[in-house]
Amino acid sequence: YPPLVIGGEEVSSRLITGSGGMTSLSALKAALIASKTSLTTVAIRRFEPTSSMGLYKLLGELNLKILPNTAGCYSHKEAILTAKLASEVLGTKFIKIEVIADDATLLPDPIETLRATESLANEGFLVMAYCSDDPILARRLELAGAAAVMPLGSPIGSGLGILNPYNIESITNHSNVPVILDAGVGGASDVSQAMELGCDGVLVASAINRAQYPELMAKSLALALEAGYLTRISGRIPKRDQALASSPTEGMIAQ
Amino acid sequence: YPPLVIGGEEVSSRLITGSGGMTSLSALKAALIASKTSLTTVAIRRFEPTSSMGLYKLLGELNLKILPNTAGCYSHKEAILTAKLASEVLGTKFIKIEVIADDATLLPDPIETLRATESLANEGFLVMAYCSDDPILARRLELAGAAAVMPLGSPIGSGLGILNPYNIESITNHSNVPVILDAGVGGASDVSQAMELGCDGVLVASAINRAQYPELMAKSLALALEAGYLTRISGRIPKRDQALASSPTEGMIAQ
Amino acid sequence: YPPLVIGGEEVSSRLITGSGGMTSLSALKAALIASKTSLTTVAIRRFEPTSSMGLYKLLGELNLKILPNTAGCYSHKEAILTAKLASEVLGTKFIKIEVIADDATLLPDPIETLRATESLANEGFLVMAYCSDDPILARRLELAGAAAVMPLGSPIGSGLGILNPYNIESITNHSNVPVILDAGVGGASDVSQAMELGCDGVLVASAINRAQYPELMAKSLALALEAGYLTRISGRIPKRDQALASSPTEGMIAQ
Amino acid sequence: YPPLVIGGEEVSSRLITGSGGMTSLSALKAALIASKTSLTTVAIRRFEPTSSMGLYKLLGELNLKILPNTAGCYSHKEAILTAKLASEVLGTKFIKIEVIADDATLLPDPIETLRATESLANEGFLVMAYCSDDPILARRLELAGAAAVMPLGSPIGSGLGILNPYNIESITNHSNVPVILDAGVGGASDVSQAMELGCDGVLVASAINRAQYPELMAKSLALALEAGYLTRISGRIPKRDQALASSPTEGMIAQ
Repeated sequence: YPPLVIGGEEVSSRLITGSGGMTSLSALKAALIASKTSLTTVAIRRFEPTSSMGLYKLLGELNLKILPNTAGCYSHKEAILTAKLASEVLGTKFIKIEVIADDATLLPDPIETLRATESLANEGFLVMAYCSDDPILARRLELAGAAAVMPLGSPIGSGLGILNPYNIESITNHSNVPVILDAGVGGASDVSQAMELGCDGVLVASAINRAQYPELMAKSLALALEAGYLTRISGRIPKRDQALASSPTEGMIAQ
Repeated sequence: YPPLVIGGEEVSSRLITGSGGMTSLSALKAALIASKTSLTTVAIRRFEPTSSMGLYKLLGELNLKILPNTAGCYSHKEAILTAKLASEVLGTKFIKIEVIADDATLLPDPIETLRATESLANEGFLVMAYCSDDPILARRLELAGAAAVMPLGSPIGSGLGILNPYNIESITNHSNVPVILDAGVGGASDVSQAMELGCDGVLVASAINRAQYPELMAKSLALALEAGYLTRISGRIPKRDQALASSPTEGMIAQ
Repeated sequence: YPPLVIGGEEVSSRLITGSGGMTSLSALKAALIASKTSLTTVAIRRFEPTSSMGLYKLLGELNLKILPNTAGCYSHKEAILTAKLASEVLGTKFIKIEVIADDATLLPDPIETLRATESLANEGFLVMAYCSDDPILARRLELAGAAAVMPLGSPIGSGLGILNPYNIESITNHSNVPVILDAGVGGASDVSQAMELGCDGVLVASAINRAQYPELMAKSLALALEAGYLTRISGRIPKRDQALASSPTEGMIAQ
Repeated sequence: YPPLVIGGEEVSSRLITGSGGMTSLSALKAALIASKTSLTTVAIRRFEPTSSMGLYKLLGELNLKILPNTAGCYSHKEAILTAKLASEVLGTKFIKIEVIADDATLLPDPIETLRATESLANEGFLVMAYCSDDPILARRLELAGAAAVMPLGSPIGSGLGILNPYNIESITNHSNVPVILDAGVGGASDVSQAMELGCDGVLVASAINRAQYPELMAKSLALALEAGYLTRISGRIPKRDQALASSPTEGMIAQ
């Protein structure tokens, strides 16, 4: 199938992974390999010279692209500053903008996210904007220059899956940039559903990293993503209120 | 993972397929191969000497076991007669009991299904009983000797997926025989969900055979089944009403 | 609106109530009055000469018809015996058949329920059969002579509402006897939904009797029942995937 | 129960109605009376001297407060202009801000809505802001001075009800101003659910005005609103995954 292209850059796997919340680097390594991901997001504000070195070394060893994110930022100013720092340190123009409204809901602030997106896109960043599932907000982010929009299925770490499939499908139907489902995934069916609804990829962190067996879950979600993508391009049967026999009944024996 | 065992017999693939509704034998062949199925269900009452020969030859060529079914039967007597005919012709003790209440809903009749199951199980058949998602009916079928119970997700051919996940999970939680989701599947997320809810396998006919590209869909559902199974054994994160950050925020830079 | 008629008998209120689980007779009295019910179900097997006298006296005082039920029965034989006892003691031919499969799920056993229904209907009882939401089972109960079928929304006392609206609507679409939703109600929207799906009435026990303020809840559910009924006969707007402006935009000022 | 207070003004009925889409003034009159509403929204940009006179006369006759709205506006500037015009003509500081992103989705634009809200609130208007169900956007609108927030259940005129109850409940849990569900209502259960989720009121236009029998539907929704409110304050039973018997089984007779 066609590769995912974000801001002109090819991303070979449509499953984008997170690096946070894992118990050890070796467990992270196994999960990253099992996920077949090619792009991993890293919280820049959580970067610590000593402990983070191992992470960057690992990502380099696995030949994974890094998608810096602005987790922990509460304003567009913080996010812009963090993005620029990430760009300098990591030498990438990719940035996942994540501006959180508060520590309790961890929901993205639409206004601050839009401001940061607009500003950074104008400066040449490839902005992937984490946002609510509001279809008009997604459109606004695209118009502001986002290279991809990343609506949430449900709150981070909730495992509630896609609370509003109608909105996600509305976003994918109207978007001219890639749509990556971000946040809320708990298991395989959530990932398949996202792809069936027209998403171009899925970002998963907690679902893998906090599972009891992250490596198995990583493999599960990689398969689920491919499965959902294939369903979408297979011309599935329509949903019908009435039953339909699976085969004609003429010419039967044993009458 | 452990193989699926039904009535003492190993079934190597947990995706059971149907043969009806396909446009050509060559298309069926491609889909069966893509699905990696090892067991295919065939409607005995639809058997016609001339046209069915090609089907049996194909299944033999692909080394697939045949699961005869009693589609088109409206009473336990018809179903029992059909099962015996199938056993003689095909030399198998496996039978999928499908006793339909009427042509409009195509829903299984619980009473006739139970009678046929009881009678055939007593005669040594390995009965796989297609039924509603009523947990107590499923238990009754097990007590009557069913080798597997096959609750529906939604009406045949509807593509509505699993209308009542609570009931399917209740069945899988209490059953001592394999539970195979049967009917209603539309795409990958339905199959993954069935496995996440504890099903031991999924039977799919229309979703593959009536899709625009059956081979792609067969591949999709095979992946989805494995994905859902892996999620189930991966120790997924619980569903939570509250958000949970994907990683701790201590020790951040860029403060 | 037309009165509810069950087995030829008029039931003036479509909200049928339960008497169990309430903390005191005076609280029960207040709730019964607030509910405007005309028919209250009483568990015959829970009848105790001393403590139950107050209950019967209260129901008589409020001029409520009694619907004896067979809660606590696990077989058709027990249910039939209990029904006959109820008939003798209470002088009514009405009986709610409730045959439970086990104490954990409290789900109705379809086979025992059908047997009891058939036997008692043949003897002239007006059987109201508590059952799963399996549409074919409901049809079987009707054919066996049930005066009303009472499919569950979800397990007793769960407050989960209607888990499978598709099945409830399928039952109401095809039934020739009244359909009373029984079990699972938690609040007003569940009751309204049942009536919108075509139910002829709703039986509520725990939702009222175990609420913190039973009298308020009784009033709530009485209003919800009427509201849902009115929506059903009002010719509601269809569900549409697309938006539709609430009024035309020609001839506007302030251009 | 306590009256609804918006921006210091009492609104005696929690069911806010719309005037558009009705076939005749006499039908509108009957529906308004049946709804027991005290506040009706009118599209200012649709105002036409001749045809609108009858409407204003009717609202005056029924002693209903008018809530002017900015339907048909696509920018904050248009909305602000329309609000000021409304204020002059109608002598009210109440304004429902509705800034639509496009004619196809009819979804509200979060950015333009926020701008209009901020500006008008600063000038002393009592702004009721129609918005998506994004909880942080609702908070932003409150912080910008909105007197009430009006999240949508689903797109205008869709009749799809509340697509994301989680978000609506999140908004009502955190809001310090009244939350009025606006758009998407189809029937009674939607209105009850909104109130159960904590909404302070519901605005309904198409569900009444486009129903086959608007007067019946108006009565239905008025009852449903009261029912849902009562459920909310009744201390309903919790949702439980397990069944719970409706009464104890000790001391039964007929053993």
